[in-house]
Amino acid sequence: MSARSIPAARYEDRLGRAQALLPAHDASALLIGVGAELQWLTGYAAHALPRLTMLVIPSRDRSSLVVPRLELAAARECTAVQAGLIDLITWEETEDPFELVARLLDESNSRPEIQLGALGGAWGRLGGLLVSDRLWATFLLRLQAVVPDAAFGLASTVLSDLRAIKDSEEVELLRTAAHAADRAITRVATGRLIGRTEADIAAEVRERLVAEGHDEAAFWIVASGPNSASPHHEPGERVVQSGQPLLLDIGGRIEGYGSDITRTFWVAGDGYGGPTDEYRHLYDVLQRAQATGTESVKPGVPAEDVDTAGRRVIEDAGFGPNFIHRTGHGIGLEGHEDPYIVAGNERALVVGNAFSIEPGIYIDGRYGARIEDIVVCGPSGPDTLNEAPRELVVVRGT
Amino acid sequence: MSARSIPAARYEDRLGRAQALLPAHDASALLIGVGAELQWLTGYAAHALPRLTMLVIPSRDRSSLVVPRLELAAARECTAVQAGLIDLITWEETEDPFELVARLLDESNSRPEIQLGALGGAWGRLGGLLVSDRLWATFLLRLQAVVPDAAFGLASTVLSDLRAIKDSEEVELLRTAAHAADRAITRVATGRLIGRTEADIAAEVRERLVAEGHDEAAFWIVASGPNSASPHHEPGERVVQSGQPLLLDIGGRIEGYGSDITRTFWVAGDGYGGPTDEYRHLYDVLQRAQATGTESVKPGVPAEDVDTAGRRVIEDAGFGPNFIHRTGHGIGLEGHEDPYIVAGNERALVVGNAFSIEPGIYIDGRYGARIEDIVVCGPSGPDTLNEAPRELVVVRGT
Repeated sequence: MSARSIPAARYEDRLGRAQALLPAHDASALLIGVGAELQWLTGYAAHALPRLTMLVIPSRDRSSLVVPRLELAAARECTAVQAGLIDLITWEETEDPFELVARLLDESNSRPEIQLGALGGAWGRLGGLLVSDRLWATFLLRLQAVVPDAAFGLASTVLSDLRAIKDSEEVELLRTAAHAADRAITRVATGRLIGRTEADIAAEVRERLVAEGHDEAAFWIVASGPNSASPHHEPGERVVQSGQPLLLDIGGRIEGYGSDITRTFWVAGDGYGGPTDEYRHLYDVLQRAQATGTESVKPGVPAEDVDTAGRRVIEDAGFGPNFIHRTGHGIGLEGHEDPYIVAGNERALVVGNAFSIEPGIYIDGRYGARIEDIVVCGPSGPDTLNEAPRELVVVRGT
Repeated sequence: MSARSIPAARYEDRLGRAQALLPAHDASALLIGVGAELQWLTGYAAHALPRLTMLVIPSRDRSSLVVPRLELAAARECTAVQAGLIDLITWEETEDPFELVARLLDESNSRPEIQLGALGGAWGRLGGLLVSDRLWATFLLRLQAVVPDAAFGLASTVLSDLRAIKDSEEVELLRTAAHAADRAITRVATGRLIGRTEADIAAEVRERLVAEGHDEAAFWIVASGPNSASPHHEPGERVVQSGQPLLLDIGGRIEGYGSDITRTFWVAGDGYGGPTDEYRHLYDVLQRAQATGTESVKPGVPAEDVDTAGRRVIEDAGFGPNFIHRTGHGIGLEGHEDPYIVAGNERALVVGNAFSIEPGIYIDGRYGARIEDIVVCGPSGPDTLNEAPRELVVVRGT
């Protein structure tokens, strides 16, 4: 699952830009463990293992990828290594990889031209070490032990803004994933539903996500009837019945890039269980809110304004207290990343931002609805990646 | 995917034992984020999210599960909450959950009977805070900021030994998963293989793992021909051919508990591509090593002795340098956990330990083989969970 759609020149550019930003953040190095940041910087989609894998990006000189010997064969296949952009350093089972990282930092740090003086610990002087946000505590505590004078911070302070701007290959991966999710959700919703458990439908969702082109399924919320009022409902043993809504919030990954779509269907059975006027009204408000939020997307608009635009439609209809979460989240190599579409995020959208717009209205104990698309901020407005219908689709479910 | 097979009494017992061990580790509290430890302690199989979810187990008094409001519905369904074993505390979007955790620690810590004096910071005096091993850096750095005087350590120092002893329900979940993996690997290997890419076969592996009863597929190594010499090979575009080995190392999860099986097949095609004598010899040595390692399992035997027992067979045959990894790893709610079957691990096996025995012989550039079972240490010897044949199975692959 290494990201073969991304050419080496992109990684060279990303590594260079990340490194160039370090001085402005008063940082000596980025220390990147397994995860989305590593894949974004090198193309290496490594497995998370108890043995340390770490990309060390010093503020100058070449970057090094430290890997356990067992992972050498996989690591050397990644684009950044293949293209000679970074050095590959393996450690043996008998070595301490944290000492190895400390030595790498020290070598870079002790060069005379960046020796700033003899006061205090070198790390305190030269600025912090920025670790990847999801680095495990077991690794961070070891790093803190071998470089005790360093101030530790988060790599996202440097990388988030860079990663939030998708290049053309990334947008196309997101679009391919979105279309696969469109097909998967439509197929599941137009099949038999009544009499099946949420868990059984969730299993079908996983299969269809892969069958439609994802490398893997990532999540599969199936919420029927009153469960649709719980935004993060876990599919369970409840049996789908007619005359109730069915909410599907599903996604998978292609070369690491995610899809994430929500549609709420009404399961009517043999025609006597159509949606109530009350539910049609709720859904109509929601659909207008989702469209209004989407239409507000363009470069220069603060992210929170997209939240406000859709939320106002819901509030004006009296459902304000029933929309209990933010409007959306960025998406890329992580399912949730910058930019967040939420009150308080005053950052202006820029071309290439990719995020969900997913308002919901939840009536506790009764039912709910949510509509979610992935939207890319284009030069003059929104580029909505999902194409599945957004109207209230009434399905028979038989 | 909450673990419904595990009764509430187990969680009560686990919470109680974990708490009781804190003073001996000079620890004030366990701080457990989303992951295997949380599921093991409460039954809550939470999603990993940027919003903090944290189980706070103080050295005395009741434990609290801190969850974002959005996750309330899911969190309250977990067995430990349902059974009233722990308190559930929700935080709103406008609150700082780290301050909330700090307050919980403070309330527990400031009780007069455990005030140890007025010297230094309370946390320094009372001992460390033990965080779950895979807690993200973004959470750990925030915790370190709100409780700056605390010494931080890893929860595994308390929990690993407890988790490494599987109770009867856990063994049965592992057995159910192992049998599902047995069926999946056999079905894949006896189907068409020649002319298909590793990646295509990997997709079939994922489907079959779920079809045979797993809740989800977890990993799917498919390594053909010379790729079988790379222990952690990533399935790629190589096309399977006759006259070569095919190594499958696959696993999934049932209620969080993993399967993990490796079998190496010989793909013979239409009868003219049978295994060479050289490969038969290599495989025979490997199979004897795997059996010898397994037979050595019983209570009181140091874990490293199981590694040595099998390794000696391989070394005696002259393949020592070609067995480049440890013999095995524990398995449970994590795919790799204690006990590790590796040189240097002198801990004696106890009844209920569950781990892989997976020696391999790798001839770089040519081919390799590995045989892996999950084995539970029973009262008088090994209980091998996998039942798929261990002999060199020659398949046609057409």
